[in-house]
Amino acid sequence: MNIGFLGLGTMGAPMARNLLKAGYALRVWNRSRGPVDALAAEGATPTASPAQAALGVDVLIAMLADDDTSRTVLCDGGALHALTRGAIVVNMATVSLDFAREMHAQCETLGLRYLAAPVLGRVNVAEAGKLNVLVAGEASVIDTVQPLFDVLGQRTWRFGDTPEQANVVKLASNFMIASAIESMSEAAALAQGHGVAGSDFLEMVTSTVFNTPAYTGYGGAISKQVFEPAGFKLALGAKDVRLALLAGEAANVPMPFASVLRDNHLDSLAHDEGQLDWAALSRVALRRAGLPRGQGEGSEEGNDGS
Amino acid sequence: MNIGFLGLGTMGAPMARNLLKAGYALRVWNRSRGPVDALAAEGATPTASPAQAALGVDVLIAMLADDDTSRTVLCDGGALHALTRGAIVVNMATVSLDFAREMHAQCETLGLRYLAAPVLGRVNVAEAGKLNVLVAGEASVIDTVQPLFDVLGQRTWRFGDTPEQANVVKLASNFMIASAIESMSEAAALAQGHGVAGSDFLEMVTSTVFNTPAYTGYGGAISKQVFEPAGFKLALGAKDVRLALLAGEAANVPMPFASVLRDNHLDSLAHDEGQLDWAALSRVALRRAGLPRGQGEGSEEGNDGS
Amino acid sequence: MNIGFLGLGTMGAPMARNLLKAGYALRVWNRSRGPVDALAAEGATPTASPAQAALGVDVLIAMLADDDTSRTVLCDGGALHALTRGAIVVNMATVSLDFAREMHAQCETLGLRYLAAPVLGRVNVAEAGKLNVLVAGEASVIDTVQPLFDVLGQRTWRFGDTPEQANVVKLASNFMIASAIESMSEAAALAQGHGVAGSDFLEMVTSTVFNTPAYTGYGGAISKQVFEPAGFKLALGAKDVRLALLAGEAANVPMPFASVLRDNHLDSLAHDEGQLDWAALSRVALRRAGLPRGQGEGSEEGNDGS
Amino acid sequence: MNIGFLGLGTMGAPMARNLLKAGYALRVWNRSRGPVDALAAEGATPTASPAQAALGVDVLIAMLADDDTSRTVLCDGGALHALTRGAIVVNMATVSLDFAREMHAQCETLGLRYLAAPVLGRVNVAEAGKLNVLVAGEASVIDTVQPLFDVLGQRTWRFGDTPEQANVVKLASNFMIASAIESMSEAAALAQGHGVAGSDFLEMVTSTVFNTPAYTGYGGAISKQVFEPAGFKLALGAKDVRLALLAGEAANVPMPFASVLRDNHLDSLAHDEGQLDWAALSRVALRRAGLPRGQGEGSEEGNDGS
Repeated sequence: MNIGFLGLGTMGAPMARNLLKAGYALRVWNRSRGPVDALAAEGATPTASPAQAALGVDVLIAMLADDDTSRTVLCDGGALHALTRGAIVVNMATVSLDFAREMHAQCETLGLRYLAAPVLGRVNVAEAGKLNVLVAGEASVIDTVQPLFDVLGQRTWRFGDTPEQANVVKLASNFMIASAIESMSEAAALAQGHGVAGSDFLEMVTSTVFNTPAYTGYGGAISKQVFEPAGFKLALGAKDVRLALLAGEAANVPMPFASVLRDNHLDSLAHDEGQLDWAALSRVALRRAGLPRGQGEGSEEGNDGS
Repeated sequence: MNIGFLGLGTMGAPMARNLLKAGYALRVWNRSRGPVDALAAEGATPTASPAQAALGVDVLIAMLADDDTSRTVLCDGGALHALTRGAIVVNMATVSLDFAREMHAQCETLGLRYLAAPVLGRVNVAEAGKLNVLVAGEASVIDTVQPLFDVLGQRTWRFGDTPEQANVVKLASNFMIASAIESMSEAAALAQGHGVAGSDFLEMVTSTVFNTPAYTGYGGAISKQVFEPAGFKLALGAKDVRLALLAGEAANVPMPFASVLRDNHLDSLAHDEGQLDWAALSRVALRRAGLPRGQGEGSEEGNDGS
Repeated sequence: MNIGFLGLGTMGAPMARNLLKAGYALRVWNRSRGPVDALAAEGATPTASPAQAALGVDVLIAMLADDDTSRTVLCDGGALHALTRGAIVVNMATVSLDFAREMHAQCETLGLRYLAAPVLGRVNVAEAGKLNVLVAGEASVIDTVQPLFDVLGQRTWRFGDTPEQANVVKLASNFMIASAIESMSEAAALAQGHGVAGSDFLEMVTSTVFNTPAYTGYGGAISKQVFEPAGFKLALGAKDVRLALLAGEAANVPMPFASVLRDNHLDSLAHDEGQLDWAALSRVALRRAGLPRGQGEGSEEGNDGS
Repeated sequence: MNIGFLGLGTMGAPMARNLLKAGYALRVWNRSRGPVDALAAEGATPTASPAQAALGVDVLIAMLADDDTSRTVLCDGGALHALTRGAIVVNMATVSLDFAREMHAQCETLGLRYLAAPVLGRVNVAEAGKLNVLVAGEASVIDTVQPLFDVLGQRTWRFGDTPEQANVVKLASNFMIASAIESMSEAAALAQGHGVAGSDFLEMVTSTVFNTPAYTGYGGAISKQVFEPAGFKLALGAKDVRLALLAGEAANVPMPFASVLRDNHLDSLAHDEGQLDWAALSRVALRRAGLPRGQGEGSEEGNDGS
């Protein structure tokens, strides 16, 4: 199985590397040249355009930033048109349902087969080949690429015959992560408003009822009020919440938590916090309550506990 | 150390039993007689009134339903007045901040020492002596009763010198649990609105990003849409959300997630769902989106994927 | 008909004066002495305590600040106990439903008849005897005091046999006013965010679709961003929103707009804006959007149009 | 001044007729033929395509349903390309900011001048030539068409040099109308939850504090619970709220009321109420509170319980 791989960012690079290690032939492309050269040094075939990466491959994997980038690379960049009829396109990015539908339709027109397969897991999980792969599309097509998913992830979850169903699952999951962050933020502000350090509260609650990485990770950042470097940028979280709301609109599903999240992310963006880590959303709760930041040990601002 | 114990409900009974097993002398009282007799058979001294249970004890532990019951038993029932000056009152119930303040003040007037020590954990955790004890009050008083907490719980978390600070931590924790339920409910409705069974989505998300009891427990109930018998009644959850909002008001902390929770709990109560398990809150999201319940396997209503 | 009148504040004083002018005998009381003396100079009988004001009157009118003040004056102050059996108590303050029920029950116990009769209208409307009187209680009792309402107001609206029904109508009305303020605030922030001066937008919208005093009054204050002196303090508005939410809770009525209002009022209070006019709620929308205040003519901060 | 007029719907037809009566030469086009013939009978020049309507005119007025229809007619339909360089395009529809920007850019490319001029007012207001015209764009261009606006409306409000600024004002105004409907709905449900007929409450409040058409009109429909025929369809209101939220996102303006409105409109759409009048949004509040519809006088109260 020859593979084309588009997008060698923080997630894409380790994923491509794992496929390479597993013995697959890979044609790779990335907007900037560095990651291409790095993978070429490990045995991948470097290419100079999306179309070239797609030439003659059985499976084209795309791991790009968002709708616009995906469209630019796959369509305008000529990748889809360069594929042989019958080839499989696996889009692993977090994109909108509308875009998934658009890609699916275009692939059908071109005689290609389209799968949506976004993943759960950060960079270190991608490196370890332990992602959770959320896939939807024609079952027989999924069967064909299942060996690749087995290399990339610890488990593949199938969610239906329509590609966008995997995207809605991914958006719903990210919505839940955003909700966890907001919930910690409000709870910590409430504690702090009554003189309990937010960090003390969060240490307890993430050690007990919510002892799971989504909480311990973002909760730790909130405790320390350290949001740089960003593991996942708040601005990207804002985008995912927006896409979840759009998905809800398409099916007439009211999502009041998502609506609160939307407004709070806008509050963050209006205060230039989009480049910070997603956990910086917690600043909104503190700001609105007139509470000082810096409840962690050693805060220079003092820790007057309000 | 002689102990009085008021309230032998589903949580109180196993807690009292553990203290008994650890060798403490216990005077016990409960509104209904059954639990009193059961503990008497294991060595506790049965009493016929809160005041009698308080006679001559060093520490009076109360594990009662709510503000009103606590007030009735501790004040009107004469328990506080029956205590010897210097005795310690440990209120382990989930009560409002106002009530905690009221009790604290009254104890001071009577020469008593008051601790708030609500717990995290359900019945089976209480039985195993593995609760998490959230305590606030004078440090030296906490030190005195720490051996009792060590019997009841796996860990004691101290949150300040003012008793109500432990109550705010408990309310903040329960708010986070309610938020987890709502977040799963909206996410599952979103998935279902796009033809993915809510149960499939929840199985995935509670096996991966949110693999922790708060999610797996309530998530399982939502998946199966089985809300009876109630582990924790929705009406009690509604009460705790209300108390969290009041705590927020007292410190000028906006809590938009809690506000959404308030409205959704009222929607549930208006539809006679207060006696169901807290996870039944998920019905609100389905109802509003016009989605059918019963997406689990084997649903008799069919699984039309909406 | 002899009348006792308790509470000669900004609203109570002109109301009492109008009754006096209409020829009624009035016994008046107020916490501070000034307003009592002023009305005495116009023919009222000054009294030194709530109980004295209630002595021998047929109708006792109370126009006090809130639940606590009303309870202090009517109950602790001895007014109710000083009344003759059969006397009518007309509570015209904006109080909670719980308090209305409590007063009603207590009056029944004492053989008194209780009406709730809050009013709509500001000071100048009270002076002109043009209030709208919202009344509930036993119809025959209302008939008896109708001549007094005819003096105080331009119209009396009857809302049922249970006194608290008039209170819920008053709270619902004030909730609608708060909603109008919030709606203008968000709309003006949206306009301003796109470079249209909030004042230009508000001038248009309050001259056309929303050309009614509730909008022109608060809208004018928002346009000018002038919130002192306060016509009606934001902190009082926050209280009324809280009472509306409590009334909703009592009947299981979700009120998502009221929930948003709650959180935004808390945001205002946390920023020390409680003493400003209710229209200052608009600052929350600007603050959250990172927009400058002072879009009105002559703003010192300049008017950069967003 | 020769005028082309595209879109002779309920609003467009009376507007075109007024221009005709004022003596202007009009080339008219509409998707369905009936309205074209009707105006031709009154002196307009009928045309068979958008492009023909645009031939040789100085000003092209478009009054079309939404973004998609406007794009289809103006761009795909060839109207813009048929215009002479220097001609003025006046788009009076309620469209998104993105679309306004897109049109503006395209007009600049074609050497045309673009104004956004949405209006406030229903059909009867359009017939009377009493609309309020909200306009933005280059001042000199507005001056040129001002005589036309003077025919169509009672007043023209100018909001800036960038066309989309008029659109944001229109969306902000419609958001305020939606807020008024929601606010009445929640308030009436609150009253009804306490045994006061919603219609009694609304009659009072729209006769006093909120005595203005936006309230009396929609409030009357809510009182009677009569939503057909639809004056303005709920589904269109949902669209406008969505566009207002998008406008907020573009400028990082949180709009929590608009977010509530979004969710409640989705609830309505999920219950097949999109074709009803906008006032049917009130059903959401009743449904969530478990309250029956049909509180008007003479309701047997039976009334299917909704």
